[in-house]
Amino acid sequence: MQGQAQQQAYDRGITIFSPDGRLYQVEYAREAVKRGTASVGVRTPEGVVLAADKRSRSPLMEPTSVEKLHKADTHIGLASAGHVADARQLIDFARRQAQVNRLRYGEPIGIETLTKNVTDHIQQYTQVGGARPFGVALLIGGVENGTPRLYETDPSGTPYEWKAVSIGAERGDLQEYLEENYSDDLTLDEGLGLALRAIASTNDDQLDAQGVDVATVSAETEEYVQLTNDEVESYITENDLEPTDEDDEDAAEEEE
Amino acid sequence: MQGQAQQQAYDRGITIFSPDGRLYQVEYAREAVKRGTASVGVRTPEGVVLAADKRSRSPLMEPTSVEKLHKADTHIGLASAGHVADARQLIDFARRQAQVNRLRYGEPIGIETLTKNVTDHIQQYTQVGGARPFGVALLIGGVENGTPRLYETDPSGTPYEWKAVSIGAERGDLQEYLEENYSDDLTLDEGLGLALRAIASTNDDQLDAQGVDVATVSAETEEYVQLTNDEVESYITENDLEPTDEDDEDAAEEEE
Amino acid sequence: MQGQAQQQAYDRGITIFSPDGRLYQVEYAREAVKRGTASVGVRTPEGVVLAADKRSRSPLMEPTSVEKLHKADTHIGLASAGHVADARQLIDFARRQAQVNRLRYGEPIGIETLTKNVTDHIQQYTQVGGARPFGVALLIGGVENGTPRLYETDPSGTPYEWKAVSIGAERGDLQEYLEENYSDDLTLDEGLGLALRAIASTNDDQLDAQGVDVATVSAETEEYVQLTNDEVESYITENDLEPTDEDDEDAAEEEE
Amino acid sequence: MQGQAQQQAYDRGITIFSPDGRLYQVEYAREAVKRGTASVGVRTPEGVVLAADKRSRSPLMEPTSVEKLHKADTHIGLASAGHVADARQLIDFARRQAQVNRLRYGEPIGIETLTKNVTDHIQQYTQVGGARPFGVALLIGGVENGTPRLYETDPSGTPYEWKAVSIGAERGDLQEYLEENYSDDLTLDEGLGLALRAIASTNDDQLDAQGVDVATVSAETEEYVQLTNDEVESYITENDLEPTDEDDEDAAEEEE
Amino acid sequence: MQGQAQQQAYDRGITIFSPDGRLYQVEYAREAVKRGTASVGVRTPEGVVLAADKRSRSPLMEPTSVEKLHKADTHIGLASAGHVADARQLIDFARRQAQVNRLRYGEPIGIETLTKNVTDHIQQYTQVGGARPFGVALLIGGVENGTPRLYETDPSGTPYEWKAVSIGAERGDLQEYLEENYSDDLTLDEGLGLALRAIASTNDDQLDAQGVDVATVSAETEEYVQLTNDEVESYITENDLEPTDEDDEDAAEEEE
Amino acid sequence: MQGQAQQQAYDRGITIFSPDGRLYQVEYAREAVKRGTASVGVRTPEGVVLAADKRSRSPLMEPTSVEKLHKADTHIGLASAGHVADARQLIDFARRQAQVNRLRYGEPIGIETLTKNVTDHIQQYTQVGGARPFGVALLIGGVENGTPRLYETDPSGTPYEWKAVSIGAERGDLQEYLEENYSDDLTLDEGLGLALRAIASTNDDQLDAQGVDVATVSAETEEYVQLTNDEVESYITENDLEPTDEDDEDAAEEEE
Amino acid sequence: MQGQAQQQAYDRGITIFSPDGRLYQVEYAREAVKRGTASVGVRTPEGVVLAADKRSRSPLMEPTSVEKLHKADTHIGLASAGHVADARQLIDFARRQAQVNRLRYGEPIGIETLTKNVTDHIQQYTQVGGARPFGVALLIGGVENGTPRLYETDPSGTPYEWKAVSIGAERGDLQEYLEENYSDDLTLDEGLGLALRAIASTNDDQLDAQGVDVATVSAETEEYVQLTNDEVESYITENDLEPTDEDDEDAAEEEE
Repeated sequence: MQGQAQQQAYDRGITIFSPDGRLYQVEYAREAVKRGTASVGVRTPEGVVLAADKRSRSPLMEPTSVEKLHKADTHIGLASAGHVADARQLIDFARRQAQVNRLRYGEPIGIETLTKNVTDHIQQYTQVGGARPFGVALLIGGVENGTPRLYETDPSGTPYEWKAVSIGAERGDLQEYLEENYSDDLTLDEGLGLALRAIASTNDDQLDAQGVDVATVSAETEEYVQLTNDEVESYITENDLEPTDEDDEDAAEEEE
Repeated sequence: MQGQAQQQAYDRGITIFSPDGRLYQVEYAREAVKRGTASVGVRTPEGVVLAADKRSRSPLMEPTSVEKLHKADTHIGLASAGHVADARQLIDFARRQAQVNRLRYGEPIGIETLTKNVTDHIQQYTQVGGARPFGVALLIGGVENGTPRLYETDPSGTPYEWKAVSIGAERGDLQEYLEENYSDDLTLDEGLGLALRAIASTNDDQLDAQGVDVATVSAETEEYVQLTNDEVESYITENDLEPTDEDDEDAAEEEE
Repeated sequence: MQGQAQQQAYDRGITIFSPDGRLYQVEYAREAVKRGTASVGVRTPEGVVLAADKRSRSPLMEPTSVEKLHKADTHIGLASAGHVADARQLIDFARRQAQVNRLRYGEPIGIETLTKNVTDHIQQYTQVGGARPFGVALLIGGVENGTPRLYETDPSGTPYEWKAVSIGAERGDLQEYLEENYSDDLTLDEGLGLALRAIASTNDDQLDAQGVDVATVSAETEEYVQLTNDEVESYITENDLEPTDEDDEDAAEEEE
Repeated sequence: MQGQAQQQAYDRGITIFSPDGRLYQVEYAREAVKRGTASVGVRTPEGVVLAADKRSRSPLMEPTSVEKLHKADTHIGLASAGHVADARQLIDFARRQAQVNRLRYGEPIGIETLTKNVTDHIQQYTQVGGARPFGVALLIGGVENGTPRLYETDPSGTPYEWKAVSIGAERGDLQEYLEENYSDDLTLDEGLGLALRAIASTNDDQLDAQGVDVATVSAETEEYVQLTNDEVESYITENDLEPTDEDDEDAAEEEE
Repeated sequence: MQGQAQQQAYDRGITIFSPDGRLYQVEYAREAVKRGTASVGVRTPEGVVLAADKRSRSPLMEPTSVEKLHKADTHIGLASAGHVADARQLIDFARRQAQVNRLRYGEPIGIETLTKNVTDHIQQYTQVGGARPFGVALLIGGVENGTPRLYETDPSGTPYEWKAVSIGAERGDLQEYLEENYSDDLTLDEGLGLALRAIASTNDDQLDAQGVDVATVSAETEEYVQLTNDEVESYITENDLEPTDEDDEDAAEEEE
Repeated sequence: MQGQAQQQAYDRGITIFSPDGRLYQVEYAREAVKRGTASVGVRTPEGVVLAADKRSRSPLMEPTSVEKLHKADTHIGLASAGHVADARQLIDFARRQAQVNRLRYGEPIGIETLTKNVTDHIQQYTQVGGARPFGVALLIGGVENGTPRLYETDPSGTPYEWKAVSIGAERGDLQEYLEENYSDDLTLDEGLGLALRAIASTNDDQLDAQGVDVATVSAETEEYVQLTNDEVESYITENDLEPTDEDDEDAAEEEE
Repeated sequence: MQGQAQQQAYDRGITIFSPDGRLYQVEYAREAVKRGTASVGVRTPEGVVLAADKRSRSPLMEPTSVEKLHKADTHIGLASAGHVADARQLIDFARRQAQVNRLRYGEPIGIETLTKNVTDHIQQYTQVGGARPFGVALLIGGVENGTPRLYETDPSGTPYEWKAVSIGAERGDLQEYLEENYSDDLTLDEGLGLALRAIASTNDDQLDAQGVDVATVSAETEEYVQLTNDEVESYITENDLEPTDEDDEDAAEEEE
């Protein structure tokens, strides 16, 4: 790590290399990702689970307004963490890519193909001047020819494929939790439980159905399905994650 | 929060990330929003209410000149706070989007659709170089298929959906007032009273009919209607918010 | 207000926000407006009056050379204050807009419409890089469907509608004078007297017919008419504002 | 006036406003004008006189090489002061405007029209980025419908109409001389004498026919005529301005 | 080598020369290459071997996700080291070049031709402003008319042809290992063993089949073939490079 | 003259005015002219002489390689001083202008016309951003309708007409020499001798035929003729300027 | 020479003049040339010789990979020194120019014509913003109408014609060696020997056939011919320049 004076030198112009070969604007965009609440993805043989912590800042804000899960196509879901307005741009981009694929080739876009389209787009913003990188990470989960796939995109434009992964706040702890608790033969329901428990693990093992979005793409149906509040509720109960009555606004307040 | 020297480093070029992942130009544009007088939106099952504090700087200025409520389409109203000239640009943009939708699809634009068109436009000004962000926040309220909707756009280009919300000066106090006094089963009239009392709460609980704009979009009629001075007057009386005879120019003087 | 070091940081690049949400280049353009001599507009039920202080720097300069009143169309007059070369650009722009309106719609442009065309144009120069804001304010006065209207544009691109207003040097004192002496039922002649006395108020209550331009748009005729020197003279006598024989160059010398 | 540190801040980028509302690059361009030798214009009822101090730096330089008077059209003359290469651009621009006018409308261009074409062109270089202002002032003198007109353009792009005016070095002294000696009823010959004596006044009341260019546009002929050396000589003798035998190169040496 | 202050001066703008004739942004991009895990290429008379260290950061990450070997065409393989997102751009570029060659000329692209296409592309990003250099090095290996060829591209856009070479982390040690152990008459199998032992040499002479990608292009078949895990396993056993049971995550952790 | 700190402020951006109205980049380009060896032009009633000091840096360099005289058209010659690569651009530009003139008008270009074409081109590089001024001065000599003409262009884009002039190193001394020795009635041969003696005057009154280029355009023939080495030799002998045997490389070594 | 602080001021922007009239970016590009190994050109009446020191950094690198001699057309060879990737761009440019000439005029391009095409191209990169100069020097040698010609291009875009010349590292010593040993009546073989001995002179008078490229264009055949290793070997033996067995990697290691 370098001193503050040197860092200042790098953030004035376009995205350029520092003497030790790093792209500071990209690293700072990663900080923007960490400022967002966490999203978690879990891949099981039966399908992919996406779950997102969406604790609202205010009781008057519509929970749907902080939606962090999005349908990219019938068979693909997206979860985001970081700068919300940037996330919306990438999600729109992904949807258009999926549509274009159906129009051109008459078939659903592959999960890996979509991911690479998105990361190519992101990379451009890190190399060509006149714009800043995207301050957002995405999880792209879906089923391709019956096989569940789960990808991550980061602000540098690198695609990663995962069995289970988290993006956003407290990634370190969440990733550790996933590594300790993941196994290759989870059912989709067990995967869903794992995702919820992972998010709860950073909140005294408690979750409010209003404060979490959950969606699945099952290998069987190949359909993106977002769970209703009641369904989430029952999974929370099942996993023993009901909130106690402390006000969970405290946690939300730390966010941007 | 960081020191002054470091902040200076970020405001010279285009909108870029700071080491902690924030976009300073966007944060400063949020300050421009806070410099404007407040607007309040309240959503009830019977419709949406928009109200705006528009205390004039001078008795010679036409009150209509500081209009802060605008009709975007027959079924949608807009309220703004912040840099006035920027607000006008976004309002014109929103109106064009609404017109285009009618021309293309032969039907009124959805509230959420319009909001996302506007926030996409705003986001571009925060990512691509050669321009600054918009220094304004909007409330977008209307009725879509009989359902009242109320959105906020901020200078980052993020859309939020609210039950009740305020933008501009003293947002903290106003939002707190709304949280304490809002309930889900308000009538439209009660919602209108809440909006007026909220604005009055930052002015010793007094309001002048000249100094506030009020408009509603009722779920029944789906029509944007701006209240006349007399109608506002009667609501002020009803809610016991008549001004005492102290000169209310004092409060106005603090504005830009 | 902020320290000098911080201000320097903001004037190097394009027009951007300062940490407290202000656009310094726009604020500095407002200073350019204050460096120009004053113009005053007064709206009465019988029509609009525009008057401009145009004390010349030299007895050899043609008084018409410092013209500050301009006809935009048969029914609209313009008064300017600030950077003269910028003013000429905006005046030309306004004239073209008025012509285009007649060509397209076969009818005179509305006063408000024209004002908003002009302010939209001004706003662009405050948001998109590669140019500076206009260092000028305009008064736009005219009659629309028999109703007198009086608008102000400022360097931010905000339109204001007024009963009576001044732009340029000593705006504070002039505006105070107008507020104290304006009433809603002035005749056009009384309005003209008020405008002249306001300008004279900043010059020991004296005026030289050579040193002031006066024009009216009467509600009856809807015609922009600039007064001759003799007509101005008689109004000066009528209002008891004849200059004593002190050389009035002293006052002029302070200008740019 | 401001300190040196602050000024430095303003000359690095495009032409922008300083905190007190001035355009430094334009002010500096005015300094470039002052670095050039003086030109003088005098308007009489019988026509316009242009005279220019063109003392050469070297006896080997052709006097025509430092020409500062130029014919813009048969009825219009131009005098310049300041950055010579910039002056040539504006003179070419003015000539093209005059030609275009004849082609389009079949008649000579008006003096005021030409002046405003030129100042509009100059103004663009003070507002749009990527170029610097013109470091030159022009006198534009001619006869329009039998009436003599005399205009000045400055680096800000402002047009001024004058009875008599000087641009370039020692403008203060020259303008004072003109004010003291001008009268409205001069003959063209008397105007010519005034122009020569004004220039001589800054040089111990001496002039060399080689060191001054003189031209007239008479109201009768409406023809731009540049005087021959002999004609200038006789006017010098007539006005008692013959040089004594001190070498006048001293004065020239101070120039750029 | 120069001091830190001086280096800072060079990384703010476009890629420019330092006083001692170096392009700092290119040198910094070379540091980005060193931050990536190593890839090794070995050329034998029987074909080319590419091997890449791809130790994953997490047991949950799919090994294929950190793929560092890529097929450019049926007869050409690519290995990369450095900034992953940049690598993907160059790999796509190379693939398109290979396709275009087949379309235009009806034959496979030559290895040297492809390399020079790629390096020309890279060089542009080091000379023309508005973008940064690519932070990646590539190995391009294949068979052309029966002859194995092995090239390296670096961030300056220089092509090098090698008998055996490594790029990325610990290049110094790896290159030394290759120089000591390479001989011109290796079989393809021996070349493969050399590549694996070289990579293992920086890891206590141990390799995990999951942590290394291996591919060959044999001179006989002219086909790019990526080895399966089992095939890699058997080569590891053959070369006595089985990992002991220490957790090899430690090594991976140092990476970006 | 100003301090060093202030100067630094002006050389970072495009060519802009300093507070005292100078264009520093143009002044610095003038320094580049002074770094080149001298060229001299002499105009006589019988024709124009161009002579250039071209002392080579090395005995192995072809003397023609440092050519400083060039034919622009059959009747026009060019001499340059300063940045050689820039000179070549302007010479090519002048040649194209001369050709275009012949094509368009069927006649040779005028000397003054050509000069002004060139200076207009030069001026553009001093006003519009994105490029630097030309670091070169030219002498343009020729015969137009039987009359010899001699012009100079400088880096600001100003044209000067001369009887005799020098550009490049030691201009002050050379110009003084020319002023003392020039007379209006020189024969072409005497003009040639003057040019050679002027150049020799800065070199202990010695010249080497290899180290000087000489060309003439006679008024009679209107043909540009470059002298052969032998012809130059005989003029050197005639004017008693033969070098003594000291190595004249010393002088050359000081050049760039 | 100037202080370090001042130099820093010049390398941040585009290529601009320093107060003493130098182009620092061009001077720094010359340093890049000096960082490359030397190339030598010798012109004899029988033809031109090009020789280049290409000592490789590693025994595993293919000697052809550091090729520094290139065929531009059948009758023209190129040698380069400096930034390798830049050299490739210029070599490609030269080849295209030669091809275009054959297509357009049906004849081989002249050596001087080609050189000037190349230097015009180089000059553009030193005057227009948005790119940096080329960090490379070229030797362009060939035969034109039976006459051998040898040119050098430098980073400023200046063409020089030479009898014998070196570019790159240790130019001072090499040029001195050539001046002492060159004579105008060398045979092509003698020229070749001179070139080799010159390169060897900076390496303890030893040369390895692998470490040097040699090519000739004979006046008789007008064909560019690159010598085989064996041919080079025999010349080395002939000139008594065989390496002793000290490892010559030491010398190579100093290079970039």
